[in-house]
Amino acid sequence: MTNKRRVCVVVTARPSYARIKTALQAIEKHPDLELFLVVGGSALIERYGNAADVIQSDGFTISARAYSLVEGENLTSMAKTTGLAIMEMSNIFLNVSPDVVVTVADRYETLATSIAAAYMNIPLAHVQGGEVTGSIDEKVRHANTKIADLHLVASEYARKRVIQMGEREGSVYVTGCPSIDLARLVSDRTPNLDFDPLGLYGGVGADIDFTEPYLIVMQHPITTQYEQARFQVEETLEAIRKIDIQTLWFWPNSDAGSDGTSKGIRSFREQYKNHKIRFFKNMSPEHFLTILNRAETIVGNSSVAIRECAYLGVPAVNIGDRQAGRDRGKNVVNSDHAADEIYELIKVQIAQKGKLEQDLLYGDGTAGQKIADVIAMHEFTTEKMLTY
Amino acid sequence: MTNKRRVCVVVTARPSYARIKTALQAIEKHPDLELFLVVGGSALIERYGNAADVIQSDGFTISARAYSLVEGENLTSMAKTTGLAIMEMSNIFLNVSPDVVVTVADRYETLATSIAAAYMNIPLAHVQGGEVTGSIDEKVRHANTKIADLHLVASEYARKRVIQMGEREGSVYVTGCPSIDLARLVSDRTPNLDFDPLGLYGGVGADIDFTEPYLIVMQHPITTQYEQARFQVEETLEAIRKIDIQTLWFWPNSDAGSDGTSKGIRSFREQYKNHKIRFFKNMSPEHFLTILNRAETIVGNSSVAIRECAYLGVPAVNIGDRQAGRDRGKNVVNSDHAADEIYELIKVQIAQKGKLEQDLLYGDGTAGQKIADVIAMHEFTTEKMLTY
Amino acid sequence: MTNKRRVCVVVTARPSYARIKTALQAIEKHPDLELFLVVGGSALIERYGNAADVIQSDGFTISARAYSLVEGENLTSMAKTTGLAIMEMSNIFLNVSPDVVVTVADRYETLATSIAAAYMNIPLAHVQGGEVTGSIDEKVRHANTKIADLHLVASEYARKRVIQMGEREGSVYVTGCPSIDLARLVSDRTPNLDFDPLGLYGGVGADIDFTEPYLIVMQHPITTQYEQARFQVEETLEAIRKIDIQTLWFWPNSDAGSDGTSKGIRSFREQYKNHKIRFFKNMSPEHFLTILNRAETIVGNSSVAIRECAYLGVPAVNIGDRQAGRDRGKNVVNSDHAADEIYELIKVQIAQKGKLEQDLLYGDGTAGQKIADVIAMHEFTTEKMLTY
Amino acid sequence: MTNKRRVCVVVTARPSYARIKTALQAIEKHPDLELFLVVGGSALIERYGNAADVIQSDGFTISARAYSLVEGENLTSMAKTTGLAIMEMSNIFLNVSPDVVVTVADRYETLATSIAAAYMNIPLAHVQGGEVTGSIDEKVRHANTKIADLHLVASEYARKRVIQMGEREGSVYVTGCPSIDLARLVSDRTPNLDFDPLGLYGGVGADIDFTEPYLIVMQHPITTQYEQARFQVEETLEAIRKIDIQTLWFWPNSDAGSDGTSKGIRSFREQYKNHKIRFFKNMSPEHFLTILNRAETIVGNSSVAIRECAYLGVPAVNIGDRQAGRDRGKNVVNSDHAADEIYELIKVQIAQKGKLEQDLLYGDGTAGQKIADVIAMHEFTTEKMLTY
Repeated sequence: MTNKRRVCVVVTARPSYARIKTALQAIEKHPDLELFLVVGGSALIERYGNAADVIQSDGFTISARAYSLVEGENLTSMAKTTGLAIMEMSNIFLNVSPDVVVTVADRYETLATSIAAAYMNIPLAHVQGGEVTGSIDEKVRHANTKIADLHLVASEYARKRVIQMGEREGSVYVTGCPSIDLARLVSDRTPNLDFDPLGLYGGVGADIDFTEPYLIVMQHPITTQYEQARFQVEETLEAIRKIDIQTLWFWPNSDAGSDGTSKGIRSFREQYKNHKIRFFKNMSPEHFLTILNRAETIVGNSSVAIRECAYLGVPAVNIGDRQAGRDRGKNVVNSDHAADEIYELIKVQIAQKGKLEQDLLYGDGTAGQKIADVIAMHEFTTEKMLTY
Repeated sequence: MTNKRRVCVVVTARPSYARIKTALQAIEKHPDLELFLVVGGSALIERYGNAADVIQSDGFTISARAYSLVEGENLTSMAKTTGLAIMEMSNIFLNVSPDVVVTVADRYETLATSIAAAYMNIPLAHVQGGEVTGSIDEKVRHANTKIADLHLVASEYARKRVIQMGEREGSVYVTGCPSIDLARLVSDRTPNLDFDPLGLYGGVGADIDFTEPYLIVMQHPITTQYEQARFQVEETLEAIRKIDIQTLWFWPNSDAGSDGTSKGIRSFREQYKNHKIRFFKNMSPEHFLTILNRAETIVGNSSVAIRECAYLGVPAVNIGDRQAGRDRGKNVVNSDHAADEIYELIKVQIAQKGKLEQDLLYGDGTAGQKIADVIAMHEFTTEKMLTY
Repeated sequence: MTNKRRVCVVVTARPSYARIKTALQAIEKHPDLELFLVVGGSALIERYGNAADVIQSDGFTISARAYSLVEGENLTSMAKTTGLAIMEMSNIFLNVSPDVVVTVADRYETLATSIAAAYMNIPLAHVQGGEVTGSIDEKVRHANTKIADLHLVASEYARKRVIQMGEREGSVYVTGCPSIDLARLVSDRTPNLDFDPLGLYGGVGADIDFTEPYLIVMQHPITTQYEQARFQVEETLEAIRKIDIQTLWFWPNSDAGSDGTSKGIRSFREQYKNHKIRFFKNMSPEHFLTILNRAETIVGNSSVAIRECAYLGVPAVNIGDRQAGRDRGKNVVNSDHAADEIYELIKVQIAQKGKLEQDLLYGDGTAGQKIADVIAMHEFTTEKMLTY
Repeated sequence: MTNKRRVCVVVTARPSYARIKTALQAIEKHPDLELFLVVGGSALIERYGNAADVIQSDGFTISARAYSLVEGENLTSMAKTTGLAIMEMSNIFLNVSPDVVVTVADRYETLATSIAAAYMNIPLAHVQGGEVTGSIDEKVRHANTKIADLHLVASEYARKRVIQMGEREGSVYVTGCPSIDLARLVSDRTPNLDFDPLGLYGGVGADIDFTEPYLIVMQHPITTQYEQARFQVEETLEAIRKIDIQTLWFWPNSDAGSDGTSKGIRSFREQYKNHKIRFFKNMSPEHFLTILNRAETIVGNSSVAIRECAYLGVPAVNIGDRQAGRDRGKNVVNSDHAADEIYELIKVQIAQKGKLEQDLLYGDGTAGQKIADVIAMHEFTTEKMLTY
């Protein structure tokens, strides 16, 4: 029997993994901590990129898998998936008996982790609270904050908001975001591409010459507007087609409406044979960031454009409302879901490439270690009260 | 096809019903609203008092029943019950297609209602947010606030807290608590007991002479300390035994640990044959309040002692931490879980009977109508953002 | 209030719909019956062909939808999907209060329908019991028989087997299989193709000239050998590629392992650009049978090859064990999962086209009406006992 | 890594434990087997006697607990409990990776075990198939048979029926019933009562003098007639009251309707203060059998009266249909649910006490060892086909 704190981290989607990876490494190496990594939701599913494979090839041991994704391509299935995930998580926590559970950010199923831990009286640490975005993520994130006992936030802004929501000052720590740690590693390295993206990750569509300029697109459906998902992706596709620069397009994750997005993409691929886009399903976070670091501009509505790209100094065209409210640096311009506007702003941003300074808004690249240190030394309690 | 707003209210436990009953009546009668009443959780189960029967005998139609209580007498079963409840609620909301869902207060399963509504893009109204208590209820209540789109709070204090948590001012209304509406009806009536409690509700234990002074006890197990539930109930039992005044004891609800409490009570009943306690499982809210209004003092950890009894001017001995943080009036004194202290404070409070003034802290008795009016006219949206 | 029997039929997959469609029509028209159609499982999901859309365009009203498919691409998810389906079905049956529930054939999730009905004391009718196949279907089918109160079987052979399993003679009726009803309609009509398959159903791959000879392939993964799914589909693909006749390939359904099959097909499509195969996801049963009736030969492991094609006189190459044990007529030859053998047998069978007689083994084309009539007049009970 | 077969046995209720206990012991001791004991359903719940405690005090290690009981006191909750149990079992089997799963007899939730194992391609052994009873157990038992790969039956009659249902002869073994093993141990021992039942198990009601004659009653609600449960228990109570011999009454298990039964018993206890009945919730199988062996007669509808009492030679009055169809010896007479008839037959049977011969109908007392031996040496496969 060891006296190490048993830390159970739950990863439920590909993007969440990038947001926690360096923390997982630091927890695993920490002399006072023992890591139990639970992988669930879309992170286990092939057509959402099977993050579990990436996680294992990164050397992590997966302690438990929680298959909880209820199919339905509609909003009801998000609710049901969350219900099923609570059941799965409560079983896993019963078996693992963790001293701390860590829930990451604001995807809908993260509330399942939070509820299972809180109702079982297990201290809950929440990573990346206190940010502002809108859409369902907004509700999920702040609900996680109100359930959590420890808050590991990315920025000073976030810290102030969490405290203003009524959390004890002593329970909130600014660690930066672990995704910036990966960005730091990537930006420290030689600028040459030291791997073969097409050989490793395949993808479908146009060939890409990585010695030439390229764009990156990541565009997720917005769940509260999911019927418009197809229209929205088509506007972006049209802008990219018109700009006629080679483009790496990353497949959206498993929210309701992803099928509207998928259909728009499939239809585009059948209609336009000579476009310069290559579609990818998944990539290891480091490889993705290496490619991102060299991109002319990132287009879409991913938070990567706002967070990692602030640190990396990569220009971004942020489309629509998905990131509304999120603290942002000078690398970002905003566009509506309109092909012409997107097209014009991409041209503007390409001109910024190489001219932007590093912005430490979301961390200095040591978040993983800070998170592990806080989890190791914080005095946990599951009792709390609004501070006002 | 009607243009009325379809309002789906979910009641999951006996005490929640008292907290919403007059709002249900006002919604049902409102010309612009249509009521869909969902009953679930312990409110359907015989051994927790089957609130569903009371609800129907009050003249309400139950639109759907959600059996979601997973047995287990432990904390895991609270989590699983919540997971199952999300699945049940999402099915029901899919069938009912409500324009608004109403979730009541802060029991653990109310988060299931909130999550199902929010993930299905249905506007969510939360009744009785912004209060402060501690224990798991505290986390649940504020998480409900962060998920809800409309806040119907009981007091000015609560309004300020909800706004401080980052909710838009325009989404928060002070309505008072519907439980006070019932208290107003009761206190307006003749002081004579116009029904036969023993004939109507049975109960087991000592005979009660309602023309003589009596106490009321309501003591719930505290989920984060559930192993102590038996000890806690035994301290109260001992104090009541010693005070030797006839007592009406109301059975606790379905939280984990209720079996510790139950065992303490059963053991007491077998050990002491000549005690003056009668145990009840359930009573209609009006009948309960009528009896409460005439009680010398209420003992235990129920919020009724703090809320309704403020309005009624009934003295209360509040035991332990369950109501810690809750705004309270002059009718309340606090005790530890210690038989002697409870005993002494009961004596003090009995002397206060008849001398306390009405306190409108939790409402003026018109909350139900106000809630219905707000739900009828509020412009709902499911998009929101932290205000800071 | 009507005195009609309320008949709840549950359809959980595309192939099940063809097996029950004419019975649904006859139940709907029957003066003594009222139809409640429940659609669940993969029948609701786009990537499995969304049978629900076909059902509605055929004029049926779907009374309830049960989203129960748990993703996982493994055997555990079949079990979990069944567990979730029981919960969904029990809710639906509670709301619908049917007098009879009808479960169709032998897919894994049909046991969910059977268990929910039986445990709720609702008489259960099972369609297509008494057949012999192997694989998990075999266990599911006979378990359905042992739970069901009424047996509507396709053939005299099946009747004997159901009775030998201990069911009362009076509870077993030979109705034939409703899929043969559709085959009869199709074979009665003019041999000209009166619709445009490519315009209606799209599909991807080679163009098809329907005035020229063509093959049909339907090959499902076998769940108890699911790791071999990719190998098996590749052998068939190779045989089809070699025979070099235009081919309509129908996508497999949602069993575990379908991703092995899918991968084999995708890989083939990327490797061979000039093949003559067109891949379809779905087709209305009538359109499918019209095309099937004109095919040179059907290849794969679908029961259609053995059942409908017996009636239609279409030659079939049945591959592997999936249909082992099933009663078959002269139109069928068997092959291992070996490209060469499949190739040779396809050549043999093409020569049989037009020379086979109609075989009434699975019915005379009036099964739907017979099923409705039996359900309308049978005296149901939920009590039964083994007859020996 | 061991080469022992990993045998996962699932116990879901108090009575099932008695039916498998000696097999558990033999599996645990067998050099080629490794036991994984899963306890679920009502076996974990206090108010159904918490068999888990008994199991642990017997020295077994519980490998996993599956909380799956959904409250509801109605038939829907039986279905939902089974759905939830499938989910729980599939998780457990995924973690345990058993080589064989063992499901016991015919309670409704045993189908959850069978389905989870079969769908996950794990060989399934079924204990006590081939018997005939009626009610929902009948359907469950034979469905288990049709899903199972190995059949360990209690009698030659049962073996013939299982084979006649289409199972391979080589997959059916007559082992006798493990409950008879316990009966053998008890009947071999000294006739003196070597423990204090009241001290160990408490119970409520009349005092019992174990040196004087006494009756035993076990009466379960019948799920398909559950509204009559209260009437039925009242008839038996009236007969027992009239016969005026001291009686040990064992509380029913967790089927729907148990509350009708419970209410009848509670009402009786309040009405009649001087009855000679003592009510027990639970007892270890050995202690129960020791007491049973000395009883004048057993009354009710438990299978113990037919099985164990055949071996022990204890007279039995079997009431109602619950055991209809079950092979029985000379110790049993049948009664309707009618107080007078029950009363008269109890008198008849008391006169038989001490005059009945041992009947080996359900085994010779070595079933546990035989079951372990078969599981250790049988060549398992998950493929099977009807034999005709």
